[in-house]
Amino acid sequence: MKVLITGFDPFGGEKINPAYEAVKRLPDEIENSEIIKIEIPTVFKKSYQKLEENIKIHNPDIVICIGQAGGRFEITPERVAINIDDARIKDNEGNQPIDQKIFEDGDSAYFSTLPIKAMVKEIKLQNIPASISNTAGTFVCNHIMYSLLYLINKKYPNIKGGFIHVPFINEQIIDKRNTPYMNLNDIIIGLTSAVKAAIKYKDDIKTIGGKLH
Amino acid sequence: MKVLITGFDPFGGEKINPAYEAVKRLPDEIENSEIIKIEIPTVFKKSYQKLEENIKIHNPDIVICIGQAGGRFEITPERVAINIDDARIKDNEGNQPIDQKIFEDGDSAYFSTLPIKAMVKEIKLQNIPASISNTAGTFVCNHIMYSLLYLINKKYPNIKGGFIHVPFINEQIIDKRNTPYMNLNDIIIGLTSAVKAAIKYKDDIKTIGGKLH
Amino acid sequence: MKVLITGFDPFGGEKINPAYEAVKRLPDEIENSEIIKIEIPTVFKKSYQKLEENIKIHNPDIVICIGQAGGRFEITPERVAINIDDARIKDNEGNQPIDQKIFEDGDSAYFSTLPIKAMVKEIKLQNIPASISNTAGTFVCNHIMYSLLYLINKKYPNIKGGFIHVPFINEQIIDKRNTPYMNLNDIIIGLTSAVKAAIKYKDDIKTIGGKLH
Amino acid sequence: MKVLITGFDPFGGEKINPAYEAVKRLPDEIENSEIIKIEIPTVFKKSYQKLEENIKIHNPDIVICIGQAGGRFEITPERVAINIDDARIKDNEGNQPIDQKIFEDGDSAYFSTLPIKAMVKEIKLQNIPASISNTAGTFVCNHIMYSLLYLINKKYPNIKGGFIHVPFINEQIIDKRNTPYMNLNDIIIGLTSAVKAAIKYKDDIKTIGGKLH
Repeated sequence: MKVLITGFDPFGGEKINPAYEAVKRLPDEIENSEIIKIEIPTVFKKSYQKLEENIKIHNPDIVICIGQAGGRFEITPERVAINIDDARIKDNEGNQPIDQKIFEDGDSAYFSTLPIKAMVKEIKLQNIPASISNTAGTFVCNHIMYSLLYLINKKYPNIKGGFIHVPFINEQIIDKRNTPYMNLNDIIIGLTSAVKAAIKYKDDIKTIGGKLH
Repeated sequence: MKVLITGFDPFGGEKINPAYEAVKRLPDEIENSEIIKIEIPTVFKKSYQKLEENIKIHNPDIVICIGQAGGRFEITPERVAINIDDARIKDNEGNQPIDQKIFEDGDSAYFSTLPIKAMVKEIKLQNIPASISNTAGTFVCNHIMYSLLYLINKKYPNIKGGFIHVPFINEQIIDKRNTPYMNLNDIIIGLTSAVKAAIKYKDDIKTIGGKLH
Repeated sequence: MKVLITGFDPFGGEKINPAYEAVKRLPDEIENSEIIKIEIPTVFKKSYQKLEENIKIHNPDIVICIGQAGGRFEITPERVAINIDDARIKDNEGNQPIDQKIFEDGDSAYFSTLPIKAMVKEIKLQNIPASISNTAGTFVCNHIMYSLLYLINKKYPNIKGGFIHVPFINEQIIDKRNTPYMNLNDIIIGLTSAVKAAIKYKDDIKTIGGKLH
Repeated sequence: MKVLITGFDPFGGEKINPAYEAVKRLPDEIENSEIIKIEIPTVFKKSYQKLEENIKIHNPDIVICIGQAGGRFEITPERVAINIDDARIKDNEGNQPIDQKIFEDGDSAYFSTLPIKAMVKEIKLQNIPASISNTAGTFVCNHIMYSLLYLINKKYPNIKGGFIHVPFINEQIIDKRNTPYMNLNDIIIGLTSAVKAAIKYKDDIKTIGGKLH
């Protein structure tokens, strides 16, 4: 199998993005599958174009996009992406869409086709905090997740795909008080476990993992 | 105009539900519109049945369902409901669906048709903290919001509808340490403002209000 | 009895200080005791001078100083003040002492002589969150509490005195995300209850109220 | 030089105590100084007796006690210990003193004689979050810190001593939601840096590090 993993470049005033910092340090092979790692820009539309280019080049079986969720404590596989761009800040090229559909002909939302509960389970087995998130926000992270699942739905039905958010890492919070973060090495271990689960589980496991709100 | 507002009964070990505590204390008239208030059970399916019964009886122009989001600091109009029941705890009749579709023939998600950004703006004008939430969870709150919007989509196209989460109130957190809450009176003021906005604004305002994740 | 209550003026970029906002709205009489309310400057030494002036003028039986603790969820009577000024930011006249003793001839710390556990109990009976704090910080709040208790210890042994921290109020956090705050009216109710307890209880009650750290 | 470092055994329902987990993994030598590591019981008085026994046996130049502060994000050298035991829960032998002095003839408080600001600086240079805390609570952590400084003050004037709190580690929070923690390896790196600073700095550095409250 072939797994394509993307990480965003830094945005929102941060000097690094823990997503790509972790992605580029992942092993080149997990569970006998080749891991292809690319950085994508934190830019509406362009991120999607770069993603599709790489899907065409590499023809992967699985695509997992990784993004930063500053303020979260856990590694959070996302359950669903929604058909809306609503940017609280400008992206890295100055775009700030407000309440716009991502694709006019897309569904209102797409669910991740990755085994998200199996991924959470595998990550936690390594003593790394994880849970399923039910919102990827309305910025470029949701945008790329939605775009990926739209592509899968419309053109690449054999690919399994989804998105995982990771917390800040140490150097990002060293001068912020009381801010959740995760050691970069823990993120790498966690993502490796998540990829393993994505490769091993054809169907997701049926286990408790919802949220009250 | 006629506005139907629902609040859930207590669940998850709580003795009260701030949603219905606030709903039952709302004025009987807001912006010259009649306000009809009902309590619905925190039970999958039954909550939806009771909701539709009341829609049939009262024939409202607007339906707003209110639920408790323990742990949130703000009043949060929800943007979207997703087609999934995934219960972390049992509902009030012991049901605990895991990863089940709410309606087989429903869309993957429905967006609120209320003017959610105008609602946030009106609430904040009263110095009550508010923001848009992009997840109503996967328990009965998301269930009722999804069901309401499904009903509107399939059978009641003239109704505008959506969901608002409210924080814990004082008596719920008095013996929990460092837990966000909101004074009940502030919730009532906030919901009244939200209803006002729902009545006054035919279309939502275009303003920043998204979230990064 | 006569009770002197002080509240600080705004500092640290805030436009108001919830301490004095609440203090000036307290009743003029509580439990048949006269309540004298004064504003003091958020300035090292000057706050202390203004406090002693008012002690001389009013000859109170009880002195309670009130300050803002942005980030706390509860009303927190302070247990102890320590003999150190260590300012993270400049005070309102530009002073920023680092690791300096407040009084060379003072004890390393003074404990509040108010019935702090009875105060917490009375506040919570009103459904207002409260707990004992074991640190008043190292800025002007600790400075005035230490100075008050030093004065009591050296010159006014018949006065009972101490300090209470209060959270931000609504207007301070309306544009900050996920920040604890308390409704001003709740603060007023809470402080009134605390003053009642200070008047009624000659000795503190013996009840659980410590912290692990 | 010789450095004696203590860590508590587990308490409060936890299966491990990150304090001793980290202490026992510290290097045997730091900056050419011998590091002696002992576990002490989370028990009032007994912890102090075991501490003094070890001071007599090892005759250290520096004593640093380490304890768990569940809920904190950072490694926190403590500034001060206060003369009070006020237990929120029972200690490991069932003792639960309420508002009792630790030593009748002790000062109201003792300040750490370690270079706490230099320690924070050295820890943060390793990208490990740290800050000075102004309260060690009123349970066994404050008890042992106070007892240590009392001993130094009364009988061992040549010893420098103090206390450091460390966060939960991964396995303690894996089934708690949104709870701060620190990777054990980061704690070990942080404590090693703190010990280095304690050995290298005869006097503390003069730098900003106070708290508003």
